[in-house]
Amino acid sequence: MGDLKEVNKEIITSPSNPHVKRLSALLKKGRLRREEGVFVCEGRKMFLEVLFQFPERIETAYFTEKVYNELNESCRERLSEISCLLMSDSLFDKAAETVTPQGVLAIVKFPGRSLEDLCLKQENGSVLRLLILDNLRDPGNLGTVVRTAEAAGMTGILLSSESVDVTNPKVVRSTMGAILRVPVCCTDSIAEAVGFYRRKFADLKVYAAALDASIPYTQADFTGDFAIIVGNESSGVGRESVEAADCCLHIPMEGRVESLNAAVAAAVMMYRAKEMRK
Amino acid sequence: MGDLKEVNKEIITSPSNPHVKRLSALLKKGRLRREEGVFVCEGRKMFLEVLFQFPERIETAYFTEKVYNELNESCRERLSEISCLLMSDSLFDKAAETVTPQGVLAIVKFPGRSLEDLCLKQENGSVLRLLILDNLRDPGNLGTVVRTAEAAGMTGILLSSESVDVTNPKVVRSTMGAILRVPVCCTDSIAEAVGFYRRKFADLKVYAAALDASIPYTQADFTGDFAIIVGNESSGVGRESVEAADCCLHIPMEGRVESLNAAVAAAVMMYRAKEMRK
Repeated sequence: MGDLKEVNKEIITSPSNPHVKRLSALLKKGRLRREEGVFVCEGRKMFLEVLFQFPERIETAYFTEKVYNELNESCRERLSEISCLLMSDSLFDKAAETVTPQGVLAIVKFPGRSLEDLCLKQENGSVLRLLILDNLRDPGNLGTVVRTAEAAGMTGILLSSESVDVTNPKVVRSTMGAILRVPVCCTDSIAEAVGFYRRKFADLKVYAAALDASIPYTQADFTGDFAIIVGNESSGVGRESVEAADCCLHIPMEGRVESLNAAVAAAVMMYRAKEMRK
Repeated sequence: MGDLKEVNKEIITSPSNPHVKRLSALLKKGRLRREEGVFVCEGRKMFLEVLFQFPERIETAYFTEKVYNELNESCRERLSEISCLLMSDSLFDKAAETVTPQGVLAIVKFPGRSLEDLCLKQENGSVLRLLILDNLRDPGNLGTVVRTAEAAGMTGILLSSESVDVTNPKVVRSTMGAILRVPVCCTDSIAEAVGFYRRKFADLKVYAAALDASIPYTQADFTGDFAIIVGNESSGVGRESVEAADCCLHIPMEGRVESLNAAVAAAVMMYRAKEMRK
């Protein structure tokens, strides 16, 4: 078993411990998470994903004694380089009141991404398959979208600044780990970001999911560099996004349904794009 | 303005009023909703959908005085045949503690559907485009699936009895009205139900979304009668479902994603089927 030199074997019981206060604050305050460039990872499964895929991103890990003692040797070896703290069960539950932590929480570095980071660099130039989210508000939807975007092979997600915070614990949970791997960049202006990509990718096709003067999504050309803009759950994409796009797309609907769930609409289009690339 | 003969103009203020007690019990108890064959509709938008599309299904409507007084004439005319009750604001909020009712709730008849009801009857025989949900547990997922199923032109949904209750208020809300229009039938045995449909539809193709020995969903034949089985959020489809299917399907995934959200997976396959029918 590795020498656990970094573990403070003392079990923290006081809510006024500065490490505990910081954890609680980061769970509750989006602005603080953004300032510090971190999110809080909860649950054993995602914690193990970070630990084995990106151990250098873990800033501090918090455990209950029981969960810490149950970790196997390969986890402990990896943890030997990481700052680990043990907390009493009752303090842990109190600090983690808004989440379902399963005895482990970790503060994970989540550095801001640039527009450039959303491109996939390849030998013969870079490739862009971008999902742009214009004012998406539901945490579960955003998490599901990030998860689906990775599976569908998108190169990145551009998120308008009015959207739900991507480091929100419910978003992080719903991504099922994809937040570690899909580059997400926030922007104050979708139009300016689209301009940036147009200068970089001469044949870029930009589609907005909207009903006005739209073509069915099956007629879109997703074979080259493209961006799909998906909008707010109630009001759809904003006018600025429609104007930034080359063309609007709709997903045909039978029955009397007025719209699809935003995460479903994004998934149907992203998988259509993936099918076209084959 | 219509003669509101059915409205009890007295405003109910007592939580022990039997109509109020019944409403609260129906909001909380799935078994009671199933026994009575009803769900509770919340929110103005969905209430208006029921009122204009299926007024005969409304058993009792409950309003706050303010919301009732704001209804326009065409609503009031339709309501003249329906039992309406007014409640004080505080009693309304108390009765509706688990939901966001926006001043209107209605008990809506939701009769049990038979296996037969999930087929679409056409002049030259009937058509089957079935989504089978094997132990789907998340209310938001089920609601989203019902909404997407209507839009994708499925003929019905077969729900295993361990799944989340389709009359659960969160499910009803997430369907955005589609629960009124998509036939949903519950079954204790997916295998027996599949047997029933196989006898009725000689060329029926049954696909289970599962990784074992599966083909990509893009190779499935969705042009004729078909059924797609989607499983539980964590454990996928059960063995009985895999055995009842002709073949398993998977949705190819890039990156390190282990699975898609169940509602997303169902949507991608249902829309693939819709594209193939064109």
